Amino acid sequence: MRQAILDKLQGLMKVRSLDAVITSSPENFGYVAGFVAPSQPLMRHRHAMAIVPAGGAPGLFCVDMEETTVKREAPDTPLSVWREFSDDPMQVLASTLEGMGLARARLGLELDYLAAGDFARLAGFLPHASLIGVEKDLSRLRQIKTPDEVALIRRLSRIADQAISDSLAAVRAGDTELDIAAVLTRRIYELGAENFKLLIVATGERSQLPNVGPTARKLQRGDVCRVEIFSVIGGYQAGVCRTAFVQEAPPMAEEIWRLMVECKYAILDRIRPGASCLEVYRDFIARLETMNLPPISFVGHGIGLHLHEDPYIGETPILGEPGGDAPIEEDMVLGFEPLCYRTGYGFGVQNKDVLHVTADGATLLSDYTNTDTLIRIG
Amino acid sequence: MRQAILDKLQGLMKVRSLDAVITSSPENFGYVAGFVAPSQPLMRHRHAMAIVPAGGAPGLFCVDMEETTVKREAPDTPLSVWREFSDDPMQVLASTLEGMGLARARLGLELDYLAAGDFARLAGFLPHASLIGVEKDLSRLRQIKTPDEVALIRRLSRIADQAISDSLAAVRAGDTELDIAAVLTRRIYELGAENFKLLIVATGERSQLPNVGPTARKLQRGDVCRVEIFSVIGGYQAGVCRTAFVQEAPPMAEEIWRLMVECKYAILDRIRPGASCLEVYRDFIARLETMNLPPISFVGHGIGLHLHEDPYIGETPILGEPGGDAPIEEDMVLGFEPLCYRTGYGFGVQNKDVLHVTADGATLLSDYTNTDTLIRIG
Repeated sequence: MRQAILDKLQGLMKVRSLDAVITSSPENFGYVAGFVAPSQPLMRHRHAMAIVPAGGAPGLFCVDMEETTVKREAPDTPLSVWREFSDDPMQVLASTLEGMGLARARLGLELDYLAAGDFARLAGFLPHASLIGVEKDLSRLRQIKTPDEVALIRRLSRIADQAISDSLAAVRAGDTELDIAAVLTRRIYELGAENFKLLIVATGERSQLPNVGPTARKLQRGDVCRVEIFSVIGGYQAGVCRTAFVQEAPPMAEEIWRLMVECKYAILDRIRPGASCLEVYRDFIARLETMNLPPISFVGHGIGLHLHEDPYIGETPILGEPGGDAPIEEDMVLGFEPLCYRTGYGFGVQNKDVLHVTADGATLLSDYTNTDTLIRIG
Repeated sequence: MRQAILDKLQGLMKVRSLDAVITSSPENFGYVAGFVAPSQPLMRHRHAMAIVPAGGAPGLFCVDMEETTVKREAPDTPLSVWREFSDDPMQVLASTLEGMGLARARLGLELDYLAAGDFARLAGFLPHASLIGVEKDLSRLRQIKTPDEVALIRRLSRIADQAISDSLAAVRAGDTELDIAAVLTRRIYELGAENFKLLIVATGERSQLPNVGPTARKLQRGDVCRVEIFSVIGGYQAGVCRTAFVQEAPPMAEEIWRLMVECKYAILDRIRPGASCLEVYRDFIARLETMNLPPISFVGHGIGLHLHEDPYIGETPILGEPGGDAPIEEDMVLGFEPLCYRTGYGFGVQNKDVLHVTADGATLLSDYTNTDTLIRIG
């Protein structure tokens, strides 16, 4: 269990007058516990939760299948186990909460994850408790990273960055997208990631397609190649995308890339505590307009335990709050990606990086590859 | 949109006196629509739904980000789009349902997926509708596959099977787990899968660990190697696991493997419409006991759009119904996996296959590799 996060939860409970917070999503289990219950993200019925009482010691709750894993990872934390095939997990949870003196408590829950049926049964088993949504508060806490979280995301960013770089260095004209993917996925593991997600290998005319995996398409002179991957450790994820050309850059590719690089540095330059998400976004869109490239709805977003987190460097910085803005804060970590899928020249380009907001600026975390010019495939 | 599935839903609505069914999970969107809204499984706030009215034409509902994808896949289906950053999707859904004359209707929903907060807001926007859980009915429908579904799962099974076989044939003593993974993932794509999940490469002493990815561990003479992967197309998934030895099988490996093979054929032999899940499971456990191998809680389960589906060939065939049994039915598709992680000899073995229940027996779908003897790595 992670003390820095538990402390944050204690502060939240004080502000919201809660007696306990009970997580239910994979990301918030990982956030509090510091590890993932492996099958929870794959099978949503395999509930795994952290129970954090105000002023008290936290407990964990998991399915019998994950008992050995959870005990190994958190040997000193009280654990309540429900049996997958015979228990109603909400009944076991209610009993556990009762045993902790929380049957009549104000309980903070994730109402954007806990399913309506589970919620109704839990409410039935705990008729005297108040069940209160704290999903937005938890997301808000997660926006500001601890030093350990920043270090992990930096490591993940550099793994993804280096793996892509190595994969592009390993291929030549005549090799295929699958050859890129083979080196890339191998390097992701070799460099220490537990897993990966969102593998994109899009070359030639396919570089215009947002989310496509590798195919047997052969690399040809003049191709533009977009390659992206997220590396994953302990539920944390960081995504990097790089763009290369094969032997000879096609017309306009270098000019458009120069604009992407300009946008990258403009974002790094403008992002600092107090900066307006909306203004950073508008600056990016204005730069796209100088080359008549089509706008996109955001150029960056928080990242950590979920693929997209608030705030967005976009026209709506906080999801569901149109017309608003949000200030950048110290110790946010953002993915940012100057890109254009449809340049109008038969190719797309993308330069996706990760940054950490420091006391007086921003530090690039995905700093393995020099992206000042397009990468060349020989 | 898939007519055979829509017909099944019409039957369900008649039985349950419903005016419409509205899916919310990725698997049931895919089930009705026949394709996946790509970011729905990755970001749960990106609601994508199928709306199927009793006796009427179905509609789809998705986030603006997925609009082009959904229109391309289902150009003739009415589509309601909500804006990610500014709309409350439940409000847009309620308006859509009102426009379809369903404001006072009996609506079937997935209460094991739709989040409690979304449910409460939807109920608020539709004060005169009745919101009824149909998640178990949908799972029940999904248990019985159409010929198209069987054909797809057969294809997926053979892709996973062949990819593993090719990866084991490509390595030698001195190569690493990463070498196996590189060939395996490459072949998965080359053979036509869109994606994969649950890659396991566990060799030597690591063959005893249930869910571990590849490492730089080198293959050594006498290693046992467990390799598993699920191939994925259109949200459907099929998993295969194979076991090999390096150059020389360690003591007891061939004897234990013979038992796994015996279990495989016993299951294929016993599975037929009307067979008892519990009896097939007990027969498996009894065979494990003949070699004093530890029992496991299930040896098979339904598979298709979700990793595990009812029924389980296990001590509790229907999740949440302890003490019960379930009959095997025609056109079920089951994953089944005679395995022992802890044989007591320093290695684990697993033989995971996929079968289709026919009118009078079972057909092996993952039939690419002959597993009658352990695979040999040279």
